[in-house]
Amino acid sequence: MKGYVQVYTGDGKGKTTAALGLSIRAAGSGLRVYIAQFIKMGEYSEIKALAKFSDLITVEQFGLGRFIKGKPSEEDIEAARNGISKVKSLMGLAKYDIIVLEEANVAAACGVISVEDILELISLKPDNIELVITGRGADPKVIEKADLVTEMKEIKHYYQKGVQARVGIEK
Amino acid sequence: MKGYVQVYTGDGKGKTTAALGLSIRAAGSGLRVYIAQFIKMGEYSEIKALAKFSDLITVEQFGLGRFIKGKPSEEDIEAARNGISKVKSLMGLAKYDIIVLEEANVAAACGVISVEDILELISLKPDNIELVITGRGADPKVIEKADLVTEMKEIKHYYQKGVQARVGIEK
Repeated sequence: MKGYVQVYTGDGKGKTTAALGLSIRAAGSGLRVYIAQFIKMGEYSEIKALAKFSDLITVEQFGLGRFIKGKPSEEDIEAARNGISKVKSLMGLAKYDIIVLEEANVAAACGVISVEDILELISLKPDNIELVITGRGADPKVIEKADLVTEMKEIKHYYQKGVQARVGIEK
Repeated sequence: MKGYVQVYTGDGKGKTTAALGLSIRAAGSGLRVYIAQFIKMGEYSEIKALAKFSDLITVEQFGLGRFIKGKPSEEDIEAARNGISKVKSLMGLAKYDIIVLEEANVAAACGVISVEDILELISLKPDNIELVITGRGADPKVIEKADLVTEMKEIKHYYQKGVQARVGIEK
């Protein structure tokens, strides 16, 4: 299969959810998926769900599970750098058909990785790997290099009504 | 769990994929999901993937599996009406926590169901069911009644480059 570069960005709900759906659909047809999570860490409902596909979908977390406000710490940066190194090494192997860089746009925007890291991964991507990049605030240079870009635009959000994130729905 | 009404619309890729991801994440935390597909029919990769969650996720197809151009046939309308009736009956039961009306916006736009059908389901929704409505072209009246609305906006699409739908990625 010829692979492309997909980007899901914007401030609306559905980016991570779409990457999750995409991974599961792919596994449904036997494709092998690697998901690098750059911001989240912990046992989310999606991790539990993905466990059903552990033969085809691998998830690794390269974030410390917190929102980064202000200057990221050394640990934040080191964790994210490990993710970039790992994905770089996968680009040379025929181990996965799809690689998802979950929240990589956010990681670049808050400085734990750089936009150049993402661009380098795009340039290293072999023809037979599909690369999926998520997170709000995708850099224009990333959008330029991508083949498919969807902006999830928030028209209305129930957080504005004071609804808290719910287990099974948001987390 | 208190349930809300979510709408995923717009012309970009990711609406069905987000609904799929949402269903799987929900199942990951033990929630029960019912998916009514109004346009598609057949063995897509997502159906194969969802089979892994057959204890928690039920999928039923109320479309004839073709795009409707011009006036829909009696069969198209009958199939879709069965879907509306089925979902209506589920609103009174405590059988599912989440109900997804897949491509219902499209079904309303092409006349196999009506916008009023969707509005009626929204008004019948009990407090403990989350209702998720997908498909491009959501009617303003549906958006008005929804609690969360994301527009998947197409910024760039590889179909424009002549890329065909691929098994495991788009179908």
